[in-house]
Amino acid sequence: MIKHFLALANFSSTEIGEFVDRAYSFSLLKNSPDKINHLLKNKIFSNAFFEASTRTRSSFEIAAKRLGGDIVNFWPESSSTKKGETVHDTLKCLENLGVDGIILRHSDDSLIEQLAHKLNTPLINAGAGKFEHPSQGLLDLLTLKKEFGELKGLRVGICGDILHSRVAGSMMVAAKKLGFEVVLMGPENLIPKNNFKHADFDKTLPHLDAIMMLRIQHERHEGIFLNQTDYREAFGMTAKRASKLASHTIIMHPGPFNRGVEIDDEAIEHPNSRIWAQMENGVYARMSILEWAAGV
Amino acid sequence: MIKHFLALANFSSTEIGEFVDRAYSFSLLKNSPDKINHLLKNKIFSNAFFEASTRTRSSFEIAAKRLGGDIVNFWPESSSTKKGETVHDTLKCLENLGVDGIILRHSDDSLIEQLAHKLNTPLINAGAGKFEHPSQGLLDLLTLKKEFGELKGLRVGICGDILHSRVAGSMMVAAKKLGFEVVLMGPENLIPKNNFKHADFDKTLPHLDAIMMLRIQHERHEGIFLNQTDYREAFGMTAKRASKLASHTIIMHPGPFNRGVEIDDEAIEHPNSRIWAQMENGVYARMSILEWAAGV
Amino acid sequence: MIKHFLALANFSSTEIGEFVDRAYSFSLLKNSPDKINHLLKNKIFSNAFFEASTRTRSSFEIAAKRLGGDIVNFWPESSSTKKGETVHDTLKCLENLGVDGIILRHSDDSLIEQLAHKLNTPLINAGAGKFEHPSQGLLDLLTLKKEFGELKGLRVGICGDILHSRVAGSMMVAAKKLGFEVVLMGPENLIPKNNFKHADFDKTLPHLDAIMMLRIQHERHEGIFLNQTDYREAFGMTAKRASKLASHTIIMHPGPFNRGVEIDDEAIEHPNSRIWAQMENGVYARMSILEWAAGV
Repeated sequence: MIKHFLALANFSSTEIGEFVDRAYSFSLLKNSPDKINHLLKNKIFSNAFFEASTRTRSSFEIAAKRLGGDIVNFWPESSSTKKGETVHDTLKCLENLGVDGIILRHSDDSLIEQLAHKLNTPLINAGAGKFEHPSQGLLDLLTLKKEFGELKGLRVGICGDILHSRVAGSMMVAAKKLGFEVVLMGPENLIPKNNFKHADFDKTLPHLDAIMMLRIQHERHEGIFLNQTDYREAFGMTAKRASKLASHTIIMHPGPFNRGVEIDDEAIEHPNSRIWAQMENGVYARMSILEWAAGV
Repeated sequence: MIKHFLALANFSSTEIGEFVDRAYSFSLLKNSPDKINHLLKNKIFSNAFFEASTRTRSSFEIAAKRLGGDIVNFWPESSSTKKGETVHDTLKCLENLGVDGIILRHSDDSLIEQLAHKLNTPLINAGAGKFEHPSQGLLDLLTLKKEFGELKGLRVGICGDILHSRVAGSMMVAAKKLGFEVVLMGPENLIPKNNFKHADFDKTLPHLDAIMMLRIQHERHEGIFLNQTDYREAFGMTAKRASKLASHTIIMHPGPFNRGVEIDDEAIEHPNSRIWAQMENGVYARMSILEWAAGV
Repeated sequence: MIKHFLALANFSSTEIGEFVDRAYSFSLLKNSPDKINHLLKNKIFSNAFFEASTRTRSSFEIAAKRLGGDIVNFWPESSSTKKGETVHDTLKCLENLGVDGIILRHSDDSLIEQLAHKLNTPLINAGAGKFEHPSQGLLDLLTLKKEFGELKGLRVGICGDILHSRVAGSMMVAAKKLGFEVVLMGPENLIPKNNFKHADFDKTLPHLDAIMMLRIQHERHEGIFLNQTDYREAFGMTAKRASKLASHTIIMHPGPFNRGVEIDDEAIEHPNSRIWAQMENGVYARMSILEWAAGV
């Protein structure tokens, strides 16, 4: 059974909890690298990113290296992709070169499931499927766990373009499995019709444990938004809104930001912001994924 | 004496046999990484690829890392090449930075010999010379050796654009040195005039130990081929042709493929195909080259 | 106190001397890598190069690896920079991913000081500030020290576009701090008005201990130079000028070269040239910087 990591939906609540717990234990050892830097000894992963990324690519690379493994980076512009090689053939090549896992980001959301069926090497979704961004999901869960101890019973708001957000997708899956509440907010036409509550942003904000702001993805759907000023007014985490949050409510954002659009500088640097911590937590989450995939 | 690895033509049959034997021994250790992961300790090679590549670049990187060495990648778009620095000056820079070998791919086929004369660091041809792609040659020989035990006396067909193929070039050199037969097939105007037998594709296929299909290199010579349908009909390894091979005849292809042109999906996945194994063997072949070049 | 390495101007003469001495000691150990390859164990630096570079990028990477550390490369074309992420947010991300230092090159010279104020991770100037290229400065000092033993009292000429040269900037700072003389030569309009002597190139050449030739940076200021033939005639280190140097005068150039413009082939390969040695010394200089920044 190949240990693909494609979606949180494929794991039980127990398994998701184990990933989060393992990530948490890595976070505790961050000042004791000698205790963990041999776990992926002799393991080499491929960072097969067919799309731009800073956070996810670098955090998988750092995760592998912190555990004593290594990464072979792949750059589509300098690869046989330029000669017309398909993604399938590129990944089969990497598999046959003997890598211990392939970390995939690709703009074609329909690819990853069918690729997984054809590979005998663990395939890790780093932003490639239609519905989920599961390594981001784990880091968000770790962030909530570090803050609140327990995930069960939390009330998490998500605001923005939820329809196109794989980040939101993984959070909704996790909410159902782990027993916390998710409330969706944002422009009507960008909220999916599902069985999650759809609520008014300003009325709901004071009653949340965490508010996840989503990035406007200009590069994915140009022109379907309000103009930026109106968007900020209606759905931005402005300095003013941040100042009115309950004292225990944390602000989250997967990055990169459009500062002054969906989030203001003051909200990013607000004492309740866990945005930079999310990036740190991403390394621990990805360490838990790589360790699991390698089967060590 | 600097240990450049430029062409199989520069080595004796004994030396080529030693490379293949060493690569073979690495292949036997693939499930015991601890036994080999120190040979290139403290060695750093430079992957100086001025042209796109997936297989060759990644397999050199993985080869170095499996032996405990490391690779510094070079990307022409992000380098002083953009400021007009010549290849010579770039390689002299890498040499002076202290790398233990420079792995070169470049589209200018006339460069590598003259560069080798000016470098005091091992220069490794990864697709740069006019006539040969010698690391591909070694992996092809390893593939044949693993299949047949002995190279001497084998009959290997090569089909396609042989005139422009450095892969074919290395195979023809090896055939002469090691005593196996090479038969050339493909469009008349793409077969070099030399002392290898030129034969009809369909008549010869049943009488071969291995058939190497070559990729149509669109990026190197646009427009000089038949249209793709006619090419496939005349010189493609179609599903039909694959189904009629002798039971011991293996199918080879250096990749990347133009599926449905020079080779069909069914031929790539045919039980007699060794195409994916060739990629694996490429890592072992490059391990033997790096070890030799480093003089360890 | 975060250990940023932004400019030689920020260090005392004693501290600069310590960097040079440490770099010198690394140069002596180059054939004994086992003595130094653990100093940066478990340390990971980020090569955040927003501009093209071969020498500086690769030498920081090799410096980290020779000391047992590692590098995560960043490529703006394949990063969230493409999604509009600011440099600040990218560096804050890298900081939160846990890197032990960020090595920055950027074309916007006004950025690095303000970025340093916002980072809690050592920021290393690899060609980013308005006035200095301090790691190049250290390698130039090391080159002079290896040649002459003592820096005090030396007479170093710099010829070319000094006004726009961060290399010259660091050398002028070092001269004041360490007590050697710098003489400026080149086109009138490209010599800054400061308290360094401005002298005639041909009259001064016979009286120098070292002559640093600067590269014409076509990519930075198109069109403000003489034509190349006239420039070479007036300010180039031609074969003829090189042949007339005093026997102890060394030729330096930071690279990459415009061969036949500011420097001739014969001058690069002249027995008194230390140009290739400068590249080697760059690795030792950067080892001393990384070791210092990591605080190990």
